[in-house]
Amino acid sequence: MKVEKLEGTRDFYPPEMRFRNWLFQKMRYVSELYGYEEFDGPFLEKFDLYAAKSGEELANEQTYVFNTRGENPERIAVRPEMTPTLARMVAAKQNELRKPLRWFTIPNVWRYERAQRGRKREFYQWNIDILGVETMDADAEILAVSIALLASLGLQKGEFVVRLSNRYYLEDLLKRLGVDLSLKEGVYRQIDRIEKLKPEDFRANLQELGLSAETVAQLEQALRERNYQDFGPLKELWERLEDYGIADYVEFDPSIVRGLLYYTGTVFEVWDPTKKFTRAIMGGGRYDGLVEVLGGQPLPAVGTAISDVVLEEMLKQQGKMPKLERELDVFVARYSPNERRQSIAVAQQLRQAGLKVELGVLGNSMDKQLKAANNSGAKFAVIVAPAELERGEVNLKNLQTRAQQTVKLEALVAAIQNEF
Amino acid sequence: MKVEKLEGTRDFYPPEMRFRNWLFQKMRYVSELYGYEEFDGPFLEKFDLYAAKSGEELANEQTYVFNTRGENPERIAVRPEMTPTLARMVAAKQNELRKPLRWFTIPNVWRYERAQRGRKREFYQWNIDILGVETMDADAEILAVSIALLASLGLQKGEFVVRLSNRYYLEDLLKRLGVDLSLKEGVYRQIDRIEKLKPEDFRANLQELGLSAETVAQLEQALRERNYQDFGPLKELWERLEDYGIADYVEFDPSIVRGLLYYTGTVFEVWDPTKKFTRAIMGGGRYDGLVEVLGGQPLPAVGTAISDVVLEEMLKQQGKMPKLERELDVFVARYSPNERRQSIAVAQQLRQAGLKVELGVLGNSMDKQLKAANNSGAKFAVIVAPAELERGEVNLKNLQTRAQQTVKLEALVAAIQNEF
Repeated sequence: MKVEKLEGTRDFYPPEMRFRNWLFQKMRYVSELYGYEEFDGPFLEKFDLYAAKSGEELANEQTYVFNTRGENPERIAVRPEMTPTLARMVAAKQNELRKPLRWFTIPNVWRYERAQRGRKREFYQWNIDILGVETMDADAEILAVSIALLASLGLQKGEFVVRLSNRYYLEDLLKRLGVDLSLKEGVYRQIDRIEKLKPEDFRANLQELGLSAETVAQLEQALRERNYQDFGPLKELWERLEDYGIADYVEFDPSIVRGLLYYTGTVFEVWDPTKKFTRAIMGGGRYDGLVEVLGGQPLPAVGTAISDVVLEEMLKQQGKMPKLERELDVFVARYSPNERRQSIAVAQQLRQAGLKVELGVLGNSMDKQLKAANNSGAKFAVIVAPAELERGEVNLKNLQTRAQQTVKLEALVAAIQNEF
Repeated sequence: MKVEKLEGTRDFYPPEMRFRNWLFQKMRYVSELYGYEEFDGPFLEKFDLYAAKSGEELANEQTYVFNTRGENPERIAVRPEMTPTLARMVAAKQNELRKPLRWFTIPNVWRYERAQRGRKREFYQWNIDILGVETMDADAEILAVSIALLASLGLQKGEFVVRLSNRYYLEDLLKRLGVDLSLKEGVYRQIDRIEKLKPEDFRANLQELGLSAETVAQLEQALRERNYQDFGPLKELWERLEDYGIADYVEFDPSIVRGLLYYTGTVFEVWDPTKKFTRAIMGGGRYDGLVEVLGGQPLPAVGTAISDVVLEEMLKQQGKMPKLERELDVFVARYSPNERRQSIAVAQQLRQAGLKVELGVLGNSMDKQLKAANNSGAKFAVIVAPAELERGEVNLKNLQTRAQQTVKLEALVAAIQNEF
């Protein structure tokens, strides 16, 4: 019976797995350069964990939720994101953990939504967070490490842009314009959609909410001017971005709103400037409230996340996918079934020296084995044949140059290592 | 609101994560030495995939199964094992894939059962399989790579034992003893339990099934004698084990039965000889039928799997857990907020050179930063202070030897690299 994989999921055959390992390796390398330590948590969590962060309804919407069997069924979720697990883990050991916490992780997460370009139901997500720092040092460091990751993948300035705001900038602006703050959420919703709306619709919608035409005009002007110098936290953050030499990567964009329930300061998104990706490719910000929500002491926090699916799409779009071949050092073939034991001994000797060795199928003919050697991706073939064996030798063939030599068994490892 | 993690799951804080990465790294290293390539598949699969392999009832028993929402709900399982995914993937691309396939993976899998020693509901599992080889070459290679993994973790001969049989050995024996083969499954069940049963109960149970006292005595004798020389496939396998020099690790044990539906030749289990683990720590064998069951062409296959939880328990029991410290090269501290920009520049310079750097929280006092440096696990501290900066220098302190020196900024990377 043929069974298909689930919609929106991926199979990682060895070539796809090599890319995934390459990508994860970059994520680990860059995270560790900045002193971040890796962590992980369980793939299934109590649904309550997500409800506590996002509210019952929102948590339920795009999450795989189910009940366990038995007398006391539990409501379980397939993790749709990692930050609730991070906050739960920090809250559970808060006093023992050295602060600031600099943690990263590359979890597998699931979203129950329609699969589309740059989105799958299952994906991996690099998460990086710093907890315990109130100042903009933390916000700037998270931006610096995020940019460093993208740069390490070959994405250059101009190939992505960070659009950044502060959760309270708009509130401050509305106050200054004399807007009734009970209208805040409605106004934010319009600002969040400003790029998608025609200017006349944007204005009409805001006036419908109760803003005067004059106020709307002032608001539009402020959104155009993009002046953060008067807003202390943004001014401070920009100084830090200058310190890191990354201010050029970042634009102040007051239309970046993001989750109001969750973020408590800096909010940012990374975008493809060509807009081939119609959604942000990365998002993050400051969430000083979450650890406390999950039962811990208050603990300031800044973090971000990016999906492997999006990164792969971006690299493909820019023609920057790495060429990753199978890494195999030696293919060992044997002349006849009589050389079975010696072939195995040669393979084991090479492995002892740390070489990656594929042993030809001992039951196959010499022709079939040589063909297999050529298709294996190995750098060398060693052929174990009776005439040479009598002299304590084997044939060593460089599969790239096609050069061939006979080598004493005891000198084989050195001969291969010298040719590398 | 405090939310606990689910029963039978683990949080990987950085120290636990270091162990997990160390273990996975060993698994990858050894697998690749033997020419195996890594793959992975989705964490959720259609329930039918497991039902096709194990039957509806058995697949359901210890698996997290649930229905998706919406008009056309799908029955989904949280993967309890990896082999069905492997077989599905192979069947889907069978003609394109180079044979033999040598694949490994380290999936996260879930079992809905009572959590106990050496068992969790969530664990990782090294799976290694070779597909496309009919002869005992494959069975021997899987045993060799399994033993190589255990050896790479520091487990030596005598600290584990492979108990091995062949699915058809018992059938052959029953035939020779003239036992009606319709009684086979009942007899196997008793043999599987032979170590747990008193001899008189074993005998009584078999006689109840319809075997004569004489047949039972002959059967007991054969099980005691453990003579595999007359059974071709076992004789051939033992020759291969000799070729690999691993026959000493392996015992013929006809009481190893394992899943009758699934295995089609060699079956084996790895056991702790002290029997502190009351279940096998590793199991595997030949399953030539599975790819065909999942809609592919017939393809011979041998494989095995071991859980990370069991390996960790074994290493702890033997006092062989590795000591894994945080890998941090440099902690950068600054004398006063005035040296903020220079501290960041120093940190970035070191990171450019590939050093792992933690930057002290710039808002903190010098005392607090030096304390943080000492607790960070860093090998070096760099202190950025105004007097030295005026001369283009910083203080470099070796945190192990406590030796200190001032170093020109442009010579800092070299000074650190020389001391490594």
